[in-house]
Amino acid sequence: MNVVYRNIRRAETAVIDGLAACGVATAHEAQGRIGLLGPSLRPIYPGARIAGSAVTVSVAPCDNWMIHVAVEQCRDGDILVVAPTSYSDAGYFGELLASSLQARGVRGLVIDAGVRDVRDLTEMRFPVWSKAISAQGTVKATPGSVNIDVVCADAIVRPGDVIVGDLDGVVVVKLEGAAGVVKLGAERMEKERQSRERLKAGELGVDFYGLRAKLQELGVEYVDEISTK
Amino acid sequence: MNVVYRNIRRAETAVIDGLAACGVATAHEAQGRIGLLGPSLRPIYPGARIAGSAVTVSVAPCDNWMIHVAVEQCRDGDILVVAPTSYSDAGYFGELLASSLQARGVRGLVIDAGVRDVRDLTEMRFPVWSKAISAQGTVKATPGSVNIDVVCADAIVRPGDVIVGDLDGVVVVKLEGAAGVVKLGAERMEKERQSRERLKAGELGVDFYGLRAKLQELGVEYVDEISTK
Amino acid sequence: MNVVYRNIRRAETAVIDGLAACGVATAHEAQGRIGLLGPSLRPIYPGARIAGSAVTVSVAPCDNWMIHVAVEQCRDGDILVVAPTSYSDAGYFGELLASSLQARGVRGLVIDAGVRDVRDLTEMRFPVWSKAISAQGTVKATPGSVNIDVVCADAIVRPGDVIVGDLDGVVVVKLEGAAGVVKLGAERMEKERQSRERLKAGELGVDFYGLRAKLQELGVEYVDEISTK
Amino acid sequence: MNVVYRNIRRAETAVIDGLAACGVATAHEAQGRIGLLGPSLRPIYPGARIAGSAVTVSVAPCDNWMIHVAVEQCRDGDILVVAPTSYSDAGYFGELLASSLQARGVRGLVIDAGVRDVRDLTEMRFPVWSKAISAQGTVKATPGSVNIDVVCADAIVRPGDVIVGDLDGVVVVKLEGAAGVVKLGAERMEKERQSRERLKAGELGVDFYGLRAKLQELGVEYVDEISTK
Amino acid sequence: MNVVYRNIRRAETAVIDGLAACGVATAHEAQGRIGLLGPSLRPIYPGARIAGSAVTVSVAPCDNWMIHVAVEQCRDGDILVVAPTSYSDAGYFGELLASSLQARGVRGLVIDAGVRDVRDLTEMRFPVWSKAISAQGTVKATPGSVNIDVVCADAIVRPGDVIVGDLDGVVVVKLEGAAGVVKLGAERMEKERQSRERLKAGELGVDFYGLRAKLQELGVEYVDEISTK
Amino acid sequence: MNVVYRNIRRAETAVIDGLAACGVATAHEAQGRIGLLGPSLRPIYPGARIAGSAVTVSVAPCDNWMIHVAVEQCRDGDILVVAPTSYSDAGYFGELLASSLQARGVRGLVIDAGVRDVRDLTEMRFPVWSKAISAQGTVKATPGSVNIDVVCADAIVRPGDVIVGDLDGVVVVKLEGAAGVVKLGAERMEKERQSRERLKAGELGVDFYGLRAKLQELGVEYVDEISTK
Repeated sequence: MNVVYRNIRRAETAVIDGLAACGVATAHEAQGRIGLLGPSLRPIYPGARIAGSAVTVSVAPCDNWMIHVAVEQCRDGDILVVAPTSYSDAGYFGELLASSLQARGVRGLVIDAGVRDVRDLTEMRFPVWSKAISAQGTVKATPGSVNIDVVCADAIVRPGDVIVGDLDGVVVVKLEGAAGVVKLGAERMEKERQSRERLKAGELGVDFYGLRAKLQELGVEYVDEISTK
Repeated sequence: MNVVYRNIRRAETAVIDGLAACGVATAHEAQGRIGLLGPSLRPIYPGARIAGSAVTVSVAPCDNWMIHVAVEQCRDGDILVVAPTSYSDAGYFGELLASSLQARGVRGLVIDAGVRDVRDLTEMRFPVWSKAISAQGTVKATPGSVNIDVVCADAIVRPGDVIVGDLDGVVVVKLEGAAGVVKLGAERMEKERQSRERLKAGELGVDFYGLRAKLQELGVEYVDEISTK
Repeated sequence: MNVVYRNIRRAETAVIDGLAACGVATAHEAQGRIGLLGPSLRPIYPGARIAGSAVTVSVAPCDNWMIHVAVEQCRDGDILVVAPTSYSDAGYFGELLASSLQARGVRGLVIDAGVRDVRDLTEMRFPVWSKAISAQGTVKATPGSVNIDVVCADAIVRPGDVIVGDLDGVVVVKLEGAAGVVKLGAERMEKERQSRERLKAGELGVDFYGLRAKLQELGVEYVDEISTK
Repeated sequence: MNVVYRNIRRAETAVIDGLAACGVATAHEAQGRIGLLGPSLRPIYPGARIAGSAVTVSVAPCDNWMIHVAVEQCRDGDILVVAPTSYSDAGYFGELLASSLQARGVRGLVIDAGVRDVRDLTEMRFPVWSKAISAQGTVKATPGSVNIDVVCADAIVRPGDVIVGDLDGVVVVKLEGAAGVVKLGAERMEKERQSRERLKAGELGVDFYGLRAKLQELGVEYVDEISTK
Repeated sequence: MNVVYRNIRRAETAVIDGLAACGVATAHEAQGRIGLLGPSLRPIYPGARIAGSAVTVSVAPCDNWMIHVAVEQCRDGDILVVAPTSYSDAGYFGELLASSLQARGVRGLVIDAGVRDVRDLTEMRFPVWSKAISAQGTVKATPGSVNIDVVCADAIVRPGDVIVGDLDGVVVVKLEGAAGVVKLGAERMEKERQSRERLKAGELGVDFYGLRAKLQELGVEYVDEISTK
Repeated sequence: MNVVYRNIRRAETAVIDGLAACGVATAHEAQGRIGLLGPSLRPIYPGARIAGSAVTVSVAPCDNWMIHVAVEQCRDGDILVVAPTSYSDAGYFGELLASSLQARGVRGLVIDAGVRDVRDLTEMRFPVWSKAISAQGTVKATPGSVNIDVVCADAIVRPGDVIVGDLDGVVVVKLEGAAGVVKLGAERMEKERQSRERLKAGELGVDFYGLRAKLQELGVEYVDEISTK
């Protein structure tokens, strides 16, 4: 029942780069507030912002065999997305696998489990978003699948979807609509640039977003000073 | 039933600055070990130590409307304290709101929920203590209140109370006794300076704090070497 | 019923230094994948890699009395391992205790609870692995024991065992087999160096570890392109 | 700094009984959706629905001394509300304390920590809402306070407030507005009775609450059958 | 961007009944160990074992509007599956919605969030699997979707998939292979019946599953009595 | 490196029965407040109170092979104690293994992981304390050890130690001191019986335990009525 899908479809490089420029928060908003991976995923070191095509791996708990199988399916510009079939915070991935992936041009790893060799990974500048850091190793005993739909940190990731990761977390952008998200994201960033200037100049959000009338309508009362409570 | 209280009382600047000098651990001890916000609150970047007057915001879950309303109630030297009425780790706050607050002299944010745009907030040096980082946005649909008593990370925060935040977490110092806490904190720091010198010189805590007699009294036995177990 | 064991056996310095050179992940593998402390323990600042002899402390919850007692039992090259008898994330340990330990040559602290004064500890370069950061202080009311077997973050730590800590977490190496672990660790590192070179050169893990035949045997299918789903 | 407040104000019996009749969900709604204690609090056995006046206890972590002090401040119809000053899941309360409270007519216990002797408490039909069950005992070493404002499971409980507990959890109703909440709760229950009949008869909520027009206005599309995705 | 899909495909009644007879553990094994919803989902009362066709609902956090919309899409034999777009443990569902669903022949609810009115739901014998119990109500302000793919407790649920729930939790069986799973499940149950008899008669699993030779091969040593350690 | 120890030492039946009569809370106190397994372990059904000799099993994560091996090492009156080497909440144990154990007179299971077939286990009246319920099965691929020291829910369990389990949780009583714990437990129960009568008669704990003088000494103030705050 386990399958390795080869030669998956991927987004165009321009689209992927556009999403990297958006960053996680903007890409998530531009896609209609869907696709965010849960906040349990954190970068192992601060600073990286990347985007790439998802090569997905479904692994048995505490078994990293299929990550080795997945490496062969990776191309330049990909991001590996690993999801165990049962909860685990063991360290499935370390410096050796990262060397292998970096040699193929893979941009990073998103894993709903743990990683190790964090000092080495940091020095190599190989970005990882994981839910744990653990030296607890894994075995190579039970097969799984590569490039099937997986659930990673509460989000569905389909092979070829675009993954964006930065300090805010990770978002998955659906392959079919990715180009549109880049366009909406760019518009959103321009709009935010304008808002930022007005807010920095002291204009208030309640005026800016026209919230005052609605507040009154909903019966929110303004009271001067707290006298007795 | 929702209210925005304006012109709350605040502590004097000297008191607030004194508490910033104390830091969280000392201010907490000096206040009699009360008022510490829970350890789930962590700074989004290391290094900041601030103090300021609490402007409190009670928000609906996944709704940041009232944060915009609260901005207008903030003055130079304030710290915004945000508490949702139901558990949530979404990102209620990002770079645009921070720009707005920074324009008014607000010193930082304490939020019992998530924030986003962490890279921007770090570059702006706008300090935030939050329980999560998440790009998951919020809506502006349900009103709440500003400057009412709130529970933030297990502590009661009243408007105008002094908030102190550093690498150790966040503590709330009650407005009415804040000046006294500064005084006790200063004494405590002087005492700790003296203790530090003696401990660095090799003096032992068991002697220093007079614990030896009490140990014996309570029947703690000293045994040389582990022979059999 | 509480005891303080004095003059415990310790590993030789060369063994301890050898384990520090291995680091956590390698030492853990070389010991047969046992002894890893749980991933809830995290370093309070990045970068330190240390090893030392465990002086263990069993403390009452929210009571740091026995840490003071344990200081006297510490020697140059030790690491203090603190485990409360009931779950707690309070701050048992701060800058004063660290000054005291550093004066005795103690290399660091591993605590299944919280610590405070994180800014000071970082400046002093006193490495700590803890499960929380909290300014919540503790009392000195209930005695405990020093140098008994304790459970720290799901692992048994016996007095005199070698503790290794780095960015990947903490591992305890049993005193009796520690020299052997150093030897196996060194072999493992040499082997990994060779693997690294081959993987960097583009060789694949599935070939390298001979996994292809086994994959086929277990019925993992390779399918070109995803046509229908 | 620790205080025991005696002879606190309490709500009238009729009000308390009225709130018991409402139950947690209705009382919470009738009060404007505030005052709910967090869902970590669960009843130790199913079935009890009670209301009573809060006698609050602020205890040191793993120390139940002040619960003994609080017993004396309890009267017929009270509910004890216990909150440690630092996170703890130890067992602060067992069958002996329950015997003592039951002898005074106390109706139950709400504790943001653990309890033990669950079999005995169940047989005695002494209702408890706790966040843990643990045989881990506590000490009597550090004093605390009785009848001060406490934070219990994320909610502020003031002495004399009315506590309501049932299978849905626990809600605190403010003393000053409690009579009004009973009235609103009764109206709410009558309205729900009517709604229930209509819904059982097959009427739909979308029609009942007039949601159809709004759905269309917000652009929610209805699509027959899933053809392509 | 929000859609309500109507008239989804469903499994045949015989298949659904067959899966109910299997129960969660057997259906999960028979499907190849996939599709299990996470163990955070627990039944609100013990005893129910049901199966039905999934009608899926994607709701905004703390907003139950779309559950009302979904009711209309439900038929006799369905099970409602509700997943919020951001973490929440509020109470989205209570007795009124259950009355409405029961009137349409809906067999139960699976929700990756909280429910309330647990006493009423239990009396009505309306089975619910939820991750929390909370009286915290929700609003009707933000639309969502009905019958799209959702992630519920770490599993992908597609509309029309068969949901099975019992004391062991919840499993989703893919619509397309459901008939095959029933067949495999029946075989599995027959095989287990035979195993049970042999094991009850005292036969050992190590013999039964032929594990002894493999143990020896992997170097597991048998040692009589514990002499020294 | 994996070992199966056979013919471990066990406590006498009278001692084991005596500890069952004590129950968890009393046995824990009588042993000096050590040995309690963490509160994450809960009984799968209410009511059972058992004691027995620990047969310990160290298993690989998501691998139940060694449980089958351990069955052969069990005798009448034993309790199986299972601890995975890495965090896992999968279901390692179900009705078939329980049939096997019950055929050998084993009294129950304590597992720092998950179990399944809960309905069957309940009908069989086979008591289990686990940290999760999950139908997620395990494999038989990686060996482990039987009757070595394990850490189960934060406590060290040594083979032959006496395990006591009831509604309050699970405690491990060390083999060597078990007879003494029974004696102290019996004394404790008699003393509690006397206390219970006095407390039921209305005597107060503050008087009973002589706490009044100490309260005054520590400066706890009694204040009549709450006037202003």
